[in-house]
Amino acid sequence: MILTVTLNAALDITYQVAALTPHASHRVGEVRERPGGKGLNVARVLTALGHEAVVTGFAGGPVGAVLRDLLAPLPVQDALVPIAGNTRRTLAVVDTSTGNTTQLNEPGPAVTADEWTAFLDMYTALLGRAGAVALCGSLPPGIHVGAYAELVRRARTAGVPVLLDTSGEPLRRGIAARPDLVKPNADELAQLTGSREPRRAAHDARRRGAHTVVASLGPDGLLAATPDTVWQAIPPATVKGNPTGAGDSAVAGLLSGLVEQLPWPERLSRAVALSAATVLAPAAGEFDATAYENLLPQIAVTERAAAA
Amino acid sequence: MILTVTLNAALDITYQVAALTPHASHRVGEVRERPGGKGLNVARVLTALGHEAVVTGFAGGPVGAVLRDLLAPLPVQDALVPIAGNTRRTLAVVDTSTGNTTQLNEPGPAVTADEWTAFLDMYTALLGRAGAVALCGSLPPGIHVGAYAELVRRARTAGVPVLLDTSGEPLRRGIAARPDLVKPNADELAQLTGSREPRRAAHDARRRGAHTVVASLGPDGLLAATPDTVWQAIPPATVKGNPTGAGDSAVAGLLSGLVEQLPWPERLSRAVALSAATVLAPAAGEFDATAYENLLPQIAVTERAAAA
Repeated sequence: MILTVTLNAALDITYQVAALTPHASHRVGEVRERPGGKGLNVARVLTALGHEAVVTGFAGGPVGAVLRDLLAPLPVQDALVPIAGNTRRTLAVVDTSTGNTTQLNEPGPAVTADEWTAFLDMYTALLGRAGAVALCGSLPPGIHVGAYAELVRRARTAGVPVLLDTSGEPLRRGIAARPDLVKPNADELAQLTGSREPRRAAHDARRRGAHTVVASLGPDGLLAATPDTVWQAIPPATVKGNPTGAGDSAVAGLLSGLVEQLPWPERLSRAVALSAATVLAPAAGEFDATAYENLLPQIAVTERAAAA
Repeated sequence: MILTVTLNAALDITYQVAALTPHASHRVGEVRERPGGKGLNVARVLTALGHEAVVTGFAGGPVGAVLRDLLAPLPVQDALVPIAGNTRRTLAVVDTSTGNTTQLNEPGPAVTADEWTAFLDMYTALLGRAGAVALCGSLPPGIHVGAYAELVRRARTAGVPVLLDTSGEPLRRGIAARPDLVKPNADELAQLTGSREPRRAAHDARRRGAHTVVASLGPDGLLAATPDTVWQAIPPATVKGNPTGAGDSAVAGLLSGLVEQLPWPERLSRAVALSAATVLAPAAGEFDATAYENLLPQIAVTERAAAA
């Protein structure tokens, strides 16, 4: 089983409006709700790839109850820890005229010290049967900034490969605890290292503690700096669509490839094809299975050079 | 007891953001939730004025459950009829830099024929002990456009004075059923009558069936066309603030004055003072009790002329 951690899970709400105009009043057309948060997205893609996936993190309040109700019919296993606070909502307001999206993200509930302890017990128990673990997304209020570092250390103690996908100070602290894999995007990598040159920045992130760094470069695919070499995986053409969840699909591709012990070129092909197939899917966070199968043999993976 | 009907009740959510920018991503600061819908606002103000108030209409789904939980500690009595659909949310996005608000209103749940019948039974039973009834706001999907006309007729049959506060076709149909009072704003009155001259439009609305028409004219206060004469009630100065709920406070002022059998000038002074005190209150839909007491003796009520 593959475990994903989402400390700041969300109910993703989508509003369709003709066009969003600041300071005006709008009638919302369609309203959609889905379980959200990066680790939940990763787990959904993992189950679509045939893996058993368990999600943990926090859920609470009326919004948390809706999230769990929407999660129940999915093949993902719910091991979210109950909290007193209300799970956050993220709102995507889509202009039906242009398809452009305005995003409004609630901060999330404050998590108490006792709730964090209950989560650590759940996490440690789940590690006992996990083949890999992904730590995904932002930290809710009340969780200390070194939380991911602690979760990385516990995974390493349990001998479970750990992927960290976060940003800012939680990434900086987490990377120092020596995760097996980090998957920053270009902005997150630049924020961490001060460099916008992906190869240099990826090497820097490795020196900070990550065993392997896979940088997601949008239309330029993925750049992987492993202990042995550097790989670049590029999609056949720029795909147009909704990029929401594309990074989470890449994480699912990398994790599944790790558990299946695939060679790096195959892991990266899978991650890039899943990511592109997610951009192509009409619903945010889903992937187009046919597009994925078609794209998979078309990903160009090249070895760029020995690692510095 | 005074009864208020809100067929399309809402959970009012307020997001604070630095400034809303279309197609950008925003971190929401504070998130607030309150029970909303015009009839619920009217009932809250009525209880603050010392009246017993009962709210009916529809509530359902997880959002309806939150709305009822938030209503429970208030002095308003909850007689909402349960439905299978999910109560709508209204979202106010407030720019903290300017105080300007962007409004996003969900359409509301579809109400079934059986749910409408259950509501009619509840409404008719409540009319038996009501001193007055207010019918407030928009109709949810599935409710026929003549619904307010039916509710006006039932109130008249029960001998209960009825105030109608809605717009568009539901107002046009409802007014033909001869309500005691309608309270359109300038836009609603113009849409109904085709005239933007308030006195002419108010007389026209009376000819369409309303016993008395009280038009709310924003900073110009209220214009009341009764069977006997025309009154205008004007606040001492333009008040600045959030106008959300000002019209609902005016309805509460008119209804309480009707039940207390106050002369028209006192009813109108109360309605205008409550309305202005609502604009001045920091929270949307609340009123500033001290401002209300100060404003009340300052409202200028003049008889404009005999009705045409």
